Amino acid sequence: MQIKILTIGGTIDKVYYDALSDYHIGEPAATELLAQAGVSCQYSIESLLRKDSLEMDAHDRALIRDHIEADTCRHIVITHGTDTMVDTARALQALNDRTIVLTGAMQPARFRDSDAAFNLGGAVALAQTLPAGVYIFMNGRVFNPEHTIKNRAAGQFQVST
Amino acid sequence: MQIKILTIGGTIDKVYYDALSDYHIGEPAATELLAQAGVSCQYSIESLLRKDSLEMDAHDRALIRDHIEADTCRHIVITHGTDTMVDTARALQALNDRTIVLTGAMQPARFRDSDAAFNLGGAVALAQTLPAGVYIFMNGRVFNPEHTIKNRAAGQFQVST
Amino acid sequence: MQIKILTIGGTIDKVYYDALSDYHIGEPAATELLAQAGVSCQYSIESLLRKDSLEMDAHDRALIRDHIEADTCRHIVITHGTDTMVDTARALQALNDRTIVLTGAMQPARFRDSDAAFNLGGAVALAQTLPAGVYIFMNGRVFNPEHTIKNRAAGQFQVST
Amino acid sequence: MQIKILTIGGTIDKVYYDALSDYHIGEPAATELLAQAGVSCQYSIESLLRKDSLEMDAHDRALIRDHIEADTCRHIVITHGTDTMVDTARALQALNDRTIVLTGAMQPARFRDSDAAFNLGGAVALAQTLPAGVYIFMNGRVFNPEHTIKNRAAGQFQVST
Repeated sequence: MQIKILTIGGTIDKVYYDALSDYHIGEPAATELLAQAGVSCQYSIESLLRKDSLEMDAHDRALIRDHIEADTCRHIVITHGTDTMVDTARALQALNDRTIVLTGAMQPARFRDSDAAFNLGGAVALAQTLPAGVYIFMNGRVFNPEHTIKNRAAGQFQVST
Repeated sequence: MQIKILTIGGTIDKVYYDALSDYHIGEPAATELLAQAGVSCQYSIESLLRKDSLEMDAHDRALIRDHIEADTCRHIVITHGTDTMVDTARALQALNDRTIVLTGAMQPARFRDSDAAFNLGGAVALAQTLPAGVYIFMNGRVFNPEHTIKNRAAGQFQVST
Repeated sequence: MQIKILTIGGTIDKVYYDALSDYHIGEPAATELLAQAGVSCQYSIESLLRKDSLEMDAHDRALIRDHIEADTCRHIVITHGTDTMVDTARALQALNDRTIVLTGAMQPARFRDSDAAFNLGGAVALAQTLPAGVYIFMNGRVFNPEHTIKNRAAGQFQVST
Repeated sequence: MQIKILTIGGTIDKVYYDALSDYHIGEPAATELLAQAGVSCQYSIESLLRKDSLEMDAHDRALIRDHIEADTCRHIVITHGTDTMVDTARALQALNDRTIVLTGAMQPARFRDSDAAFNLGGAVALAQTLPAGVYIFMNGRVFNPEHTIKNRAAGQFQVST
């Protein structure tokens, strides 16, 4: 079984650039995380965008959707900023012939206590086992994008009423 | 949905004790990992044993099985040493009314580049979504214990022929 | 011998706050670093300011100077932002009756590959052994603030011509 | 000023080898630590031995002494196991024409909360600033090997009475 990891940017990939005294989206954190985890199934990582998810628009989401649609891979993990992950997930729900799992991190992967590795492990596992559809894996739970919001104040994803 | 994390020991929980110039099984690494991951579903962590899996015997496996059987929880993650994880998984296959996912780590969780967080994330995700049965999540893959071996030389779990 | 660690802020103490999608100066990183290092000499840590060093002014520097002057401790480490560390060091040179070592970090201490621990170890060692005066320890070198600049593009401290 | 880092082994360099279910002395941790710290002075790292310090004998110590004596470098850091660091330090005291600072770590550098980086930062700083002689930097303090012991139970170096 082949897995495709598509990286879009977001907090998970942020690095600290001292010269600019700021954080920027760096190389995909997934590369090192999957290597460290000794992942043995076939996979490839592709950096499609390097955007803060607050800066994403419908055009970006269409780009992601078209890119996936043109790919034959049926098991896809997307690492993405958390702020608009739900929006991107919803934009992909039309692709109902493959399993797509979106995840990201509340703390950059390069931080000592980041949730990045845990989240990616969950997404990789789910991409191989869930039926076709679009899902979000954050805060240790599997969400249906149709009924999910990110509660920014609480710093977690929740089922929306 | 409630998840029970049962910790048995193994490399994932190993710490380095200088006074003895050696490693020992310490407190469950799962405690910190689940907290760092911001896991928001209900869960409890129980340290049942603190054994190197090479030192486990049929008595230990019966203890684990009886303990799970007596518990009402239907979604269980077991962190365990990797050397005999398959043996313990097989000993639990009689419990066919709940989802049990075994995982561990090739490097202690307290190591900088450990696979522990990734593996635990996968196991937590799978414990909530897989149908009743016993599974192993290692090296980014989901294994059926009936047809799995740990290839020690290669340092990974593989499907046995 | 007693050491006082005075924390002023800067990159070394930066944490990532997701809700604000930004970094902020958090609790002094020195607390955890000194504990992890098993420092056994007597020391105390005091958080005097929590400022990005680009936001510091003459008033802040006077505050630091007066604070140190009022303290009886003769061996002082100051963790500080790197951008204007030289300016603060120069402002303290009038205090010529104690050993003051300034340091900081190019990457937040909470980052996996931070220089924070290394720099703090050097500063703690030097505060106990150097003669009275003001020094900077960065990039593995001991600098005299009178002839030091931070080369932002190169990301390192250098002797100025 | 040139610094030579001579690595002898010890806990600081221990890595976990799963196939052997044990820790072994790996590549010098100093290489990565000095790179991460952005050390800008001239230095070279040489792996002379890879021994647990409990396994070192007079022959090994003579080897280290002769090796240093044959080197022109006047500022030397030695990373070494902590158990017999004092013995090696004493064996080097005859070399009174250069500054030699021994350090190591109570936890392997590859551990998340290791004291390795802090200790190495202190040793690098001291190797450049202390007068000729042999010193130990551990637990945040500078020790004269003549009056130092490692208190194994307490897990720290102390001045001996």
